Amino acid sequence: MDASKTSDRLNVAVIGAGRMGADHIRRLDTRISGARVAAVVDVDEARATDAVRDVPGAVALTDPTEALARADVDAVLVATPGFLHEDILLAALEKDMPILCEKPLTQEPDSSWRIVEAEERLGRQRIQVGFMRRFDSEYAALGGIFAGGELGAPLMLHCAHRNPSTPPGFTNEMLITDSVVHEFDVIRYLTGEEIASVQIRRGRRNSFAPDEQHDPQHVLIETTGGLLADVEIFVNAEFGYQVTTQAVFERGIVNIGRDRGPEVAASGRWGGVVTPGFEERFGDAYEAEVQSWVDAAARGEIGGPSAWDGYATAACCAAGVRAQQSDAAVTVELNTKPEIYHS
Amino acid sequence: MDASKTSDRLNVAVIGAGRMGADHIRRLDTRISGARVAAVVDVDEARATDAVRDVPGAVALTDPTEALARADVDAVLVATPGFLHEDILLAALEKDMPILCEKPLTQEPDSSWRIVEAEERLGRQRIQVGFMRRFDSEYAALGGIFAGGELGAPLMLHCAHRNPSTPPGFTNEMLITDSVVHEFDVIRYLTGEEIASVQIRRGRRNSFAPDEQHDPQHVLIETTGGLLADVEIFVNAEFGYQVTTQAVFERGIVNIGRDRGPEVAASGRWGGVVTPGFEERFGDAYEAEVQSWVDAAARGEIGGPSAWDGYATAACCAAGVRAQQSDAAVTVELNTKPEIYHS
Amino acid sequence: MDASKTSDRLNVAVIGAGRMGADHIRRLDTRISGARVAAVVDVDEARATDAVRDVPGAVALTDPTEALARADVDAVLVATPGFLHEDILLAALEKDMPILCEKPLTQEPDSSWRIVEAEERLGRQRIQVGFMRRFDSEYAALGGIFAGGELGAPLMLHCAHRNPSTPPGFTNEMLITDSVVHEFDVIRYLTGEEIASVQIRRGRRNSFAPDEQHDPQHVLIETTGGLLADVEIFVNAEFGYQVTTQAVFERGIVNIGRDRGPEVAASGRWGGVVTPGFEERFGDAYEAEVQSWVDAAARGEIGGPSAWDGYATAACCAAGVRAQQSDAAVTVELNTKPEIYHS
Amino acid sequence: MDASKTSDRLNVAVIGAGRMGADHIRRLDTRISGARVAAVVDVDEARATDAVRDVPGAVALTDPTEALARADVDAVLVATPGFLHEDILLAALEKDMPILCEKPLTQEPDSSWRIVEAEERLGRQRIQVGFMRRFDSEYAALGGIFAGGELGAPLMLHCAHRNPSTPPGFTNEMLITDSVVHEFDVIRYLTGEEIASVQIRRGRRNSFAPDEQHDPQHVLIETTGGLLADVEIFVNAEFGYQVTTQAVFERGIVNIGRDRGPEVAASGRWGGVVTPGFEERFGDAYEAEVQSWVDAAARGEIGGPSAWDGYATAACCAAGVRAQQSDAAVTVELNTKPEIYHS
Repeated sequence: MDASKTSDRLNVAVIGAGRMGADHIRRLDTRISGARVAAVVDVDEARATDAVRDVPGAVALTDPTEALARADVDAVLVATPGFLHEDILLAALEKDMPILCEKPLTQEPDSSWRIVEAEERLGRQRIQVGFMRRFDSEYAALGGIFAGGELGAPLMLHCAHRNPSTPPGFTNEMLITDSVVHEFDVIRYLTGEEIASVQIRRGRRNSFAPDEQHDPQHVLIETTGGLLADVEIFVNAEFGYQVTTQAVFERGIVNIGRDRGPEVAASGRWGGVVTPGFEERFGDAYEAEVQSWVDAAARGEIGGPSAWDGYATAACCAAGVRAQQSDAAVTVELNTKPEIYHS
Repeated sequence: MDASKTSDRLNVAVIGAGRMGADHIRRLDTRISGARVAAVVDVDEARATDAVRDVPGAVALTDPTEALARADVDAVLVATPGFLHEDILLAALEKDMPILCEKPLTQEPDSSWRIVEAEERLGRQRIQVGFMRRFDSEYAALGGIFAGGELGAPLMLHCAHRNPSTPPGFTNEMLITDSVVHEFDVIRYLTGEEIASVQIRRGRRNSFAPDEQHDPQHVLIETTGGLLADVEIFVNAEFGYQVTTQAVFERGIVNIGRDRGPEVAASGRWGGVVTPGFEERFGDAYEAEVQSWVDAAARGEIGGPSAWDGYATAACCAAGVRAQQSDAAVTVELNTKPEIYHS
Repeated sequence: MDASKTSDRLNVAVIGAGRMGADHIRRLDTRISGARVAAVVDVDEARATDAVRDVPGAVALTDPTEALARADVDAVLVATPGFLHEDILLAALEKDMPILCEKPLTQEPDSSWRIVEAEERLGRQRIQVGFMRRFDSEYAALGGIFAGGELGAPLMLHCAHRNPSTPPGFTNEMLITDSVVHEFDVIRYLTGEEIASVQIRRGRRNSFAPDEQHDPQHVLIETTGGLLADVEIFVNAEFGYQVTTQAVFERGIVNIGRDRGPEVAASGRWGGVVTPGFEERFGDAYEAEVQSWVDAAARGEIGGPSAWDGYATAACCAAGVRAQQSDAAVTVELNTKPEIYHS
Repeated sequence: MDASKTSDRLNVAVIGAGRMGADHIRRLDTRISGARVAAVVDVDEARATDAVRDVPGAVALTDPTEALARADVDAVLVATPGFLHEDILLAALEKDMPILCEKPLTQEPDSSWRIVEAEERLGRQRIQVGFMRRFDSEYAALGGIFAGGELGAPLMLHCAHRNPSTPPGFTNEMLITDSVVHEFDVIRYLTGEEIASVQIRRGRRNSFAPDEQHDPQHVLIETTGGLLADVEIFVNAEFGYQVTTQAVFERGIVNIGRDRGPEVAASGRWGGVVTPGFEERFGDAYEAEVQSWVDAAARGEIGGPSAWDGYATAACCAAGVRAQQSDAAVTVELNTKPEIYHS
């Protein structure tokens, strides 16, 4: 192979080498055109070293600051736990680098708003937030139907988000902040409206859920335009992973989220395999998301959801967690959207 | 043909020869084994006469009392508008006849309760109420899954009831009393529990709905056992007729209500025909319902939902109509269930 | 109940009380309007007696002639094994009675042709043959698409006929005469053309089939109009019962035969129950078939496939059995269609 | 961005800038990790120049020899018409380069065999042939079911290959050499057996097909292991693009090729969009194919179907074209498989 020609690839520092970080490292290394992993940062040095073992030219580090200071780093992918995002994002904005930040932007509306303000001071959008569903082909097709208008005005949404199980430490609040957060983003994306209020009712409890969780929960969301969306959040559903949306329009109904793959008739049953997890369901979407970010970075832009989207969903999550405490609807409070986020 | 042997058939007076009555007359005459139409009663004499024209041996009458008094009438099928049900039911109970009463039993909980009390005095169940969904093969299969328990406890229900359009005079209250009433019955049937409360939120209005209706509406129902069921009631849905239920259990999800018939790929689209109306969707169920009633009558029993089911759903409807006035959950008030309805 | 009025019902003698006969007796007794079982004939007296035990007014006999001679018998349903059909049919035609004859009309083209000739001498159609698929709602809908012409000319058919298992004594020839015979009838029904030739190739053998069968087989049929239809006949398919047809038109594809019932997601799989057997798949069709025959009998007509259809399929079966001996196409030989069968 | 680091990417010369070539150029440039387009060759200089306009670092050439001689070219993707393949392949084998050759390998068994011999002399596999279906997730899943054996032995295959229309000049022979060739490869891939014989029957002709084509045709294939596969090849199907396979095993049936995307109920119909063309159906498979080739090239291997697969399918096509002349089965003639293709 030729080893003399110059590179035009984006050199990415991946911050955080846990499950999501490792996935992104593998993706950048083997599937994405026009980018490479230049550095991996993890407070756990062994984990960082492991992560770069098979990645040619990538260094393992323990300090994000060091990564941002390297000459061979020109972009950042943030995949640490959410409570660590604020400092890294502010530092990367300082460097005016392209940033892909796994959701959440930050964990609370206040810190998210500080990020928005920092970016506003910078004067242009640099942060893309990892709401990967927007890159799923079916959500995109549904978005096209919303935009096209052939079915008339959208009237209701029925959403279900089912996980086979939750990892240890998955709290009751995380049903909202870790799972329903995707629905907040998708509802905003599809309708082009902000979320006005959130009501949560708990109903009957799944006896297989961990003690600290009331699972499932019934979330009823209203947008600023008056559209109602119900969400079943069910995170110990055992049978598999399932994320579906049914959109009700004046002139028709649209369903997305059917399982794929061969259909088999055997042993007295017909059907197929339920998608086992989010990697299988949204693997293509993650790839499209990262490729879109890499392509946009080459143009000095972002290629997906913005820091404003991260802030607005953080505000929805805060309302949702409050809504878990009563049966009443809780209003979502939002600051005014800065000019740089008006499309 | 042989004209000498004696008849062992149920001789039915059909009261009311409107759309539902005419359907039942045709069904009894051409599809049901062991019954015949002996008389048709309608205040509109011409309509009664029309209805019996091709029915051998049936007489046309305008007064229900006259029908009940005839020697060749031994059962009653009530298909008049609901506000006329109470008097006819009380008169037929007097005669201790088998009665099939189209829903609703009566329009208010108070009058329904008077029917229940009259039947209780009679000492046995004579009234079967026309909640035909219980005779639909898919609802019955879903009922079997509830009863079987293999999927664990039921946790939530997601129901949709979509009509292509509504007839003139279909009021806002009728979204509940005429349509959601079926969901009240089905939820009670599937869970074996009573309805505890009803919450209704209106959301965005379909611009194609008549002025007097707020269509669609979002109904959130809780059973006495804590199960939550959401119902989308959407009665000017234009695209076709659709009644679906998704049941969420601890270990799995069950969907009923797929459309049937050939699947066609043509002109760039694959798919099939949406069921156009309730006759096509529930025609088999109506037939099974009436056959079950006829068969049970021969044994001195009823073969379906009871007057108690009629009373309980009337109470749910009353709560639902109140719930249309606010965003809060309204409690359903029920008297104690009489002994004769304990199975 | 009233026991004085005269009966206008068809009084049916059922000849043969085996599996199909017993089904028809139950059906006539409990599901069909306008008919009753007057007599049951079986060479096995105990079986005949068993069959009438719960049927009011029906007598058990061992001799078909005796049944045909009774004053209270005015129609015949023939459900004996095929080799007994000819004598019974000729005797019933003598009496000019309405006849419903389970398929096959007779087992060979020669004997079938004698029936056709006898009916021709009678001067009108009295025999309806039990090809029940024509009464299945999906085959009927597909027939409507053929007739409608919106999808252009039909070009090919792909058929599959899968049985979970075969009873003892089910020979290799019976794959054609007992199973593919239905496809011969359906292809003739859908296209309105006769079968011109049959080619059979055996391919790889299912190791679970009985020794005397080569199962599955690949049947390639050409109509007189040049349409090709392939049929997979697979009678030890284990997983369930499945009868499907895919019709290829110039402008589109039509599929019938999807399984029905609830769709369940559980234990990592989505799907539903495969129809276990022909009663579940075609129970409604059998009911519609018998009702159609009863209704037509009241008008002095037949209400379904004719003796000509029985003769023509017998000729197809004879060609099919010859085609099992080589890989070449075998021509179907047909006499000229008598006038009384021209519609 | 960093412009100093060395490249470890595969530098590809794409030979042929027509539809397939242009697709591959775009794919290599924007979606594939670890490769770049170094040169584009087309006899039409303007087309070559157009193709490299937005591809950084790529040169436009008219002579394949020149491309192979360049220092910055270390691999070849052949996308010219099939009749030009032999010379280019032999020249690239001379250079011992990784080669991805769009199907067919060459147009006749003889020339394909010369390629096989040249590769055999080289002593290792360098040519990967572009049968992209093997990289489709559903064909791969079906391959896993064949390999797994849980459903017992495979007994039959039912395949359909439907194109909406054909380009000008698409001859009758091309139904086999351009379309059914994919089925030959897939059947060989799934079963692990060679094709033994091909029978073709024409049946009724689509009135919308060009005069020079008899469309559709019915192809009946037998493998060396006795498995039968029928193929409907229908290339002016108008309604859309559809490639489906149904595999019949001893214990069950597997279907692949359902359409994807949202399911919509509107205007009285439910369903979705039929895949419009092969790019939409197999776009992901093309991408996986090219990525697999690039990854394998880095290890000095091929990552998909071999030159032997190209030769064997050329022999099938030759038999298929002969089979179009009669109704009889035509035997496929194959030389002995060289050692280097034994896995």
